[in-house]
Amino acid sequence: MASTAITRIGTLITNNPSLGHGPLGQLHDAAVVIDGDRIAWIGTTSETPTTDSHHDAAGRAVIPGFVDSHSHLLFAGDRTEEFTARMSGRPYTAGGIRSTVTATRRASDQQLDANLAAHLTEMRRQGTTTVETKSGYGLTTEDEARALRVARAHTPETTYLGAHITAPEYAEDPDAYVALVTGPMLDACAPYARWIDVFCERGAFGADAARTILAAGRARGLAPRVHANQLGPGPGVQLAVEAGAVSADHCTHLTDADVTALADGDTVATLLPGCEFSTRAPYPDARRLITAGVTVALATDCNPGSSYTSSMPFCIAVAVREMGMTPEEALWSATAGGAAALARDDIGHLTPGARADLALLAAPSPVHLAYRPGVPLIEAVWQNGARVP
Amino acid sequence: MASTAITRIGTLITNNPSLGHGPLGQLHDAAVVIDGDRIAWIGTTSETPTTDSHHDAAGRAVIPGFVDSHSHLLFAGDRTEEFTARMSGRPYTAGGIRSTVTATRRASDQQLDANLAAHLTEMRRQGTTTVETKSGYGLTTEDEARALRVARAHTPETTYLGAHITAPEYAEDPDAYVALVTGPMLDACAPYARWIDVFCERGAFGADAARTILAAGRARGLAPRVHANQLGPGPGVQLAVEAGAVSADHCTHLTDADVTALADGDTVATLLPGCEFSTRAPYPDARRLITAGVTVALATDCNPGSSYTSSMPFCIAVAVREMGMTPEEALWSATAGGAAALARDDIGHLTPGARADLALLAAPSPVHLAYRPGVPLIEAVWQNGARVP
Ligand SMILES: [Zn+2]
Ligand SMILES: [Zn+2]
Repeated sequence: MASTAITRIGTLITNNPSLGHGPLGQLHDAAVVIDGDRIAWIGTTSETPTTDSHHDAAGRAVIPGFVDSHSHLLFAGDRTEEFTARMSGRPYTAGGIRSTVTATRRASDQQLDANLAAHLTEMRRQGTTTVETKSGYGLTTEDEARALRVARAHTPETTYLGAHITAPEYAEDPDAYVALVTGPMLDACAPYARWIDVFCERGAFGADAARTILAAGRARGLAPRVHANQLGPGPGVQLAVEAGAVSADHCTHLTDADVTALADGDTVATLLPGCEFSTRAPYPDARRLITAGVTVALATDCNPGSSYTSSMPFCIAVAVREMGMTPEEALWSATAGGAAALARDDIGHLTPGARADLALLAAPSPVHLAYRPGVPLIEAVWQNGARVP
Repeated sequence: MASTAITRIGTLITNNPSLGHGPLGQLHDAAVVIDGDRIAWIGTTSETPTTDSHHDAAGRAVIPGFVDSHSHLLFAGDRTEEFTARMSGRPYTAGGIRSTVTATRRASDQQLDANLAAHLTEMRRQGTTTVETKSGYGLTTEDEARALRVARAHTPETTYLGAHITAPEYAEDPDAYVALVTGPMLDACAPYARWIDVFCERGAFGADAARTILAAGRARGLAPRVHANQLGPGPGVQLAVEAGAVSADHCTHLTDADVTALADGDTVATLLPGCEFSTRAPYPDARRLITAGVTVALATDCNPGSSYTSSMPFCIAVAVREMGMTPEEALWSATAGGAAALARDDIGHLTPGARADLALLAAPSPVHLAYRPGVPLIEAVWQNGARVP
């Protein structure tokens, strides 16, 4: 396969402390050689081996591609009016997740696929090279399975979220919906999913139901992850740790016991600042988690209701402004942290042998992602070793 | 000159209530005809007159180009380390504006020009078609004049800000610096400037000095604008109204008397949320100003210290999240509001005869600028009737 060298990188972030200085393994005047879909070599520009082609970074920064470990892209329609109403302080009683469920069920497979593809393209252009995405707007056996089938054609990181909310048809009998989610719906979805997720929150699924759902998924080979402690304190985070979930997501309202459980366990805390930004909710305290020794990831939660950003740079900027993260910590959490939240060791870092997923910035330093909020700073992206158009 | 039609616009924002519904003059399934550098016609797609060329908006939204009425782009260097230190909670005593002054004085004319051009290109790609920019990092007669000479080649909206801070050489004799700013420096700068501005704030220039500076500028044909009430309460806003300034900028800390003065006068309040975002300062209260009847503009304050965003969409999103603006109000303030802050009636709205400055969004509604924060949604831009590359 063809090899490419990217040379004269002003600041190269490897996320591999053995390759450079600091926790991000930084190198200056650096070069990366890509061979096929993998990183083949990392070093200084002057020592770059000969390659088939060559890209001059001219002093700009290169970072690992972002790993967006939490999104909900299997949907149709949007919720512009609900957003406007919320931001205008007007009450808005209709809609919510259910309006997206209605639109999603009505959409054709082709429409779902096109909408997913458009969002993935948008994400790639913003430097994201790995995307996890969830079902959860179908809430019938057929609609959940087809959402995951559509998703699987685009990404291996697919999550079965039949337990997003209780399907409207089961409002009077939520136990029967749990039986569906852990029975026929799971059977239909498992072939297309790597993960199982549950929205463990007052108004969605309680602790007992969440445990049942995660156990059923695990029995079918799906690894657990949990939507936890978004809207208020609750059992989600500790349940996630107990269940061996790779990630507890949101983590907005945490008790000291929750933080201790995360610190003592192996579960990553995935923070989703786009959600708090777009719902005017208080932000999670990343500093508290980092101080306690918890592994923190950042993701977009991209969905048409509570967080319709697809921008990892935006999430970094907000995390630095609002959540007590340094620019370096936020960058790590958006790359290596996301990889940890997906239990992946081939992405989130630039090391010989790792997947060649990386982004060239229109800036000399990755600090600019926070220092220059909102500015489109992603100049070029390589995914699996190929330059993204 | 050649004419172009943009048709099938899902939502067209004209900012002209006589052309469409609501305060933004919205039209649906609309078309715009550009002839030369002006808007020639606005109506529905089916009635579009014949033109030389044609662009299908395919249901997407079109808005007036953003008017960024406050930026500081005549500088060299950046302040990445200062930003990192601030965001990491570490004290940082060196630097500030003075470090940019040092770098700017050392830069060649060509470097200043290239840096300005790069930022203007970045802004255009984000939908900004008019940019005001200020001197203020030279602080000598020669350095201020050359900054404005460089700027004037790119934009008519140039502002003489010799009164940014007292030049370091005059630290012991600030009155002598005011004499320079209102004397030889003004003489050298006036030919290249439309506006005069003063940073009226504790630690910069007090009320008496500010009045003297604005009066001197006015005597040389420069119209006044004021940096006011950014860091704390102060005389700036009321002084701006008294001086007939077209805009008082920042307006972060306002008394009731300040709000009343703005409401009773003709001075626009220009809010700069990028600055509060990037300095972790409390945001100005746009809702209070709008309720009082004050005209509000939004601008980036793009500068390497306190607000290094060049993104008007980002400012809109933050204004909606943090400042009590609705998505419609924020869009108006970023377009028509900016035009008011520059006393321009040919921009900020799409009306036959107005300048053909407009942006096509990768979204069906301009609400997406706030609903989808951080996402690069500017798909195409026309400036003076020409498509921006
Ligand atoms: Zn979610
Ligand atoms: Zn300013």
